[in-house]
Amino acid sequence: MKQLRIDINCDLGESYGRYKLGQDEEILKSITSANIACGFHAGDPRVIFETVKMAQKEGVGIGAHPGYPDLNGFGRREMKLTSAEIYQLIIYQLGALQGFARVFGTRIRHVKPHGALYNQAAKDRRIAEAIATAVADLDEELILFGLAGGELVSAGQRLNLKVASEVFADRTYQADGSLTPRDRPDALITDSQAAVFQVLQMIKQKKVTATDGSELSLCADTVCVHGDGQNALEFVQELTLNLRQAGIEILPVGKER
Amino acid sequence: MKQLRIDINCDLGESYGRYKLGQDEEILKSITSANIACGFHAGDPRVIFETVKMAQKEGVGIGAHPGYPDLNGFGRREMKLTSAEIYQLIIYQLGALQGFARVFGTRIRHVKPHGALYNQAAKDRRIAEAIATAVADLDEELILFGLAGGELVSAGQRLNLKVASEVFADRTYQADGSLTPRDRPDALITDSQAAVFQVLQMIKQKKVTATDGSELSLCADTVCVHGDGQNALEFVQELTLNLRQAGIEILPVGKER
Amino acid sequence: MKQLRIDINCDLGESYGRYKLGQDEEILKSITSANIACGFHAGDPRVIFETVKMAQKEGVGIGAHPGYPDLNGFGRREMKLTSAEIYQLIIYQLGALQGFARVFGTRIRHVKPHGALYNQAAKDRRIAEAIATAVADLDEELILFGLAGGELVSAGQRLNLKVASEVFADRTYQADGSLTPRDRPDALITDSQAAVFQVLQMIKQKKVTATDGSELSLCADTVCVHGDGQNALEFVQELTLNLRQAGIEILPVGKER
Amino acid sequence: MKQLRIDINCDLGESYGRYKLGQDEEILKSITSANIACGFHAGDPRVIFETVKMAQKEGVGIGAHPGYPDLNGFGRREMKLTSAEIYQLIIYQLGALQGFARVFGTRIRHVKPHGALYNQAAKDRRIAEAIATAVADLDEELILFGLAGGELVSAGQRLNLKVASEVFADRTYQADGSLTPRDRPDALITDSQAAVFQVLQMIKQKKVTATDGSELSLCADTVCVHGDGQNALEFVQELTLNLRQAGIEILPVGKER
Repeated sequence: MKQLRIDINCDLGESYGRYKLGQDEEILKSITSANIACGFHAGDPRVIFETVKMAQKEGVGIGAHPGYPDLNGFGRREMKLTSAEIYQLIIYQLGALQGFARVFGTRIRHVKPHGALYNQAAKDRRIAEAIATAVADLDEELILFGLAGGELVSAGQRLNLKVASEVFADRTYQADGSLTPRDRPDALITDSQAAVFQVLQMIKQKKVTATDGSELSLCADTVCVHGDGQNALEFVQELTLNLRQAGIEILPVGKER
Repeated sequence: MKQLRIDINCDLGESYGRYKLGQDEEILKSITSANIACGFHAGDPRVIFETVKMAQKEGVGIGAHPGYPDLNGFGRREMKLTSAEIYQLIIYQLGALQGFARVFGTRIRHVKPHGALYNQAAKDRRIAEAIATAVADLDEELILFGLAGGELVSAGQRLNLKVASEVFADRTYQADGSLTPRDRPDALITDSQAAVFQVLQMIKQKKVTATDGSELSLCADTVCVHGDGQNALEFVQELTLNLRQAGIEILPVGKER
Repeated sequence: MKQLRIDINCDLGESYGRYKLGQDEEILKSITSANIACGFHAGDPRVIFETVKMAQKEGVGIGAHPGYPDLNGFGRREMKLTSAEIYQLIIYQLGALQGFARVFGTRIRHVKPHGALYNQAAKDRRIAEAIATAVADLDEELILFGLAGGELVSAGQRLNLKVASEVFADRTYQADGSLTPRDRPDALITDSQAAVFQVLQMIKQKKVTATDGSELSLCADTVCVHGDGQNALEFVQELTLNLRQAGIEILPVGKER
Repeated sequence: MKQLRIDINCDLGESYGRYKLGQDEEILKSITSANIACGFHAGDPRVIFETVKMAQKEGVGIGAHPGYPDLNGFGRREMKLTSAEIYQLIIYQLGALQGFARVFGTRIRHVKPHGALYNQAAKDRRIAEAIATAVADLDEELILFGLAGGELVSAGQRLNLKVASEVFADRTYQADGSLTPRDRPDALITDSQAAVFQVLQMIKQKKVTATDGSELSLCADTVCVHGDGQNALEFVQELTLNLRQAGIEILPVGKER
């Protein structure tokens, strides 16, 4: 039987100017894919430079984490943009990050939209297609990360892009496969053992239990962890340990064993 | 005897959102190099997309026109940045533009800093080196445009970059080779025949007469024209005609005849 | 019988840095209320300063024209903000404009939200209340401008604010009283006589004919005209002439005769 | 003999969106004047709202802390602006803050420029006058805070503004009275007892010892403390205790005993 595998990704490079967010240097030691903010919802040229440098040093896969042009709302507020506007902001942000990858002699390997753009791309086919088309037009080798079962993964597949179905350790799921919105009391899984259990269930049984008790089928190629917050580092280490003990290999998406 | 040649460049893509600046579509028919704003002092993802598309269609060389992060000041206000900050903002802006070039199946051919960054790079070796190093690190095939006789051209040469010495048709020169600042009454040459005369003198005699009457030696690889203002288009056509009548070939920098 | 009256308002101060929009100086001679952009969707400290100065000189009523923090989208893209965020951005923008009014020895007289914020406030009670509460908390003498028949006018009335029902000369109405969205082919009235006719009908008969042929009742305290575009000035002059010929007095909202 | 007095001020409200900076809630309990960022170099409408609310609750004097429009550089990078631009950005930022003060039923009491603008205003008479004129035009009751012995204090005095000479606890002075730039190794006083000693010397003897050993005379109306960093809170408490033990009253500038 083939050994199960999973990629661990984390949003990084979300500091800005004088403002520091996340423990990027530490978390990079425990993940396989870094989603680097590109300067629209977070990040700036210095932060991108330093984050690419650190990720490259740790051998972590470099990905773009493009978002809406809304630094004040951290890209978490929905904005109503045309498909052309979304396509163009993806090209801009990915291009900017590619510049930094190039000066460090490396390449972007994957793309994961941020915040409201990510959530909308999971549900809205028009937005999903704008993003996937931009990625395909820019570099068809890029791996597109999207919510497992969502529109972005489908849009990527229709364009023959490599895709990665993403699952969440510390977020609950609704019956339709979407994440429970952050403003609901049951949105987050705060117990680390419960979070680890959910991840193992998703990888091994390809299932997750929704907030209404129903079971959803899903595919888990990569699991998202967080780099900020009190116990972020401890949790990632705990998750990694548990995954390995369960015989699951932790490996970047798409990488040959 | 070898035929004299000159490149004609213009700053383009300086519109932003609802704000339109310049007659880009028309001016593109008369120039050989387009310096495209990259979203910091002007330009946005839509404007860059459309400008690259138009330049590509007209066969005009695509260049990056990076500036300070100061949309409100249009990049014309000096800012005191570290060398690292300048290096990083060049990488970011060039990378972003490269993204758009790639989706149109083309490449950036040259780089010309904008506004205050351009002027400071002509005089300040530290700034010139930060820019030239960024360009060299990103793509050593890029041609660096700088003020004829200025520090940026020297910095590029030290790094073995291809450089283009830029001259101005409608700006006067001071005895030290710098442009007369815009707030001086004698900064601009408003008479089109005088402007044409200055360009011909610079190309044919490699000289220009400074505001104090002294003669300066300079090299003229590319001449800058403007795309906005009342008579911008007429002037470019008049200049082109006069250059051709004087037997000067109008050709992109670096292009084989 | 009491003489009919109308206020004529126009969005002004929408230039930004190097970017000029609108013919503010000219249009100010023909209107009674100036809605001045406050630096979020358009406008900057210099533009606000100069616009307040001009409006003051022409004796035109100074109003705030606050919008979403989206310069690139000119405040025309919907953003999903909390009520607190909307309340706070109104306070910020109105406060900033009040600063300029004070240095010119005058006061803000009215408030009209811009673009997407205006349209959402006409339909969404939550947004309307956030705006109206901010206005009431800041200065209860302010007159709140909103779409005739919309939620913003109602919210203002519930808070005992003075309100002005706004009608449009060159936009068509849908059966529910909302403006036909700009992306529809029948959104704009391009024939100036038709536009004048619509305004006269709204003032004199308190009615407008919707795009489906139905008749809507509405109140018309102020009519919105535009300051940019080819024939903006001519149209305002034509409208003014026709209103006066029809015996309608042109007077700022709330002003005693 | 009249009892000696001092005001303690701190820069607050420098968080932005998702980014938190400083321990505002705690530091407010130990200071008498809060310099609140106004949204250009730091701060946003939500942060301003919450900071004014907290300062009001603690009875701390509310002041404006306007800076250059450079969020990415935190207002610490010099920008070359005209006097008119500086005047206008002061009006804008002070006006915005006044809006929030008004909804909490209070007023702005003082103004202290931030970062590069503060430092330039201490040395450059043109910049100092632009700031002081804006403050005087907006509200002549405002107290202008500037570096003790610097141009801003002089400019305020020439305009008959109330001024407060500011001294620093943890920064060293150069022989000309300016602060030692942050990039020098001897810029900061890291030993808290040495910092307390410097403050006591400035208040009681109206003198400070410069880095070259020379003694400078200066006036100390208000002392600046910091609200971020490891030991910020502890230091303020230590300073307060030592001032009180030395018989110095801690009182807002301008407040009657």
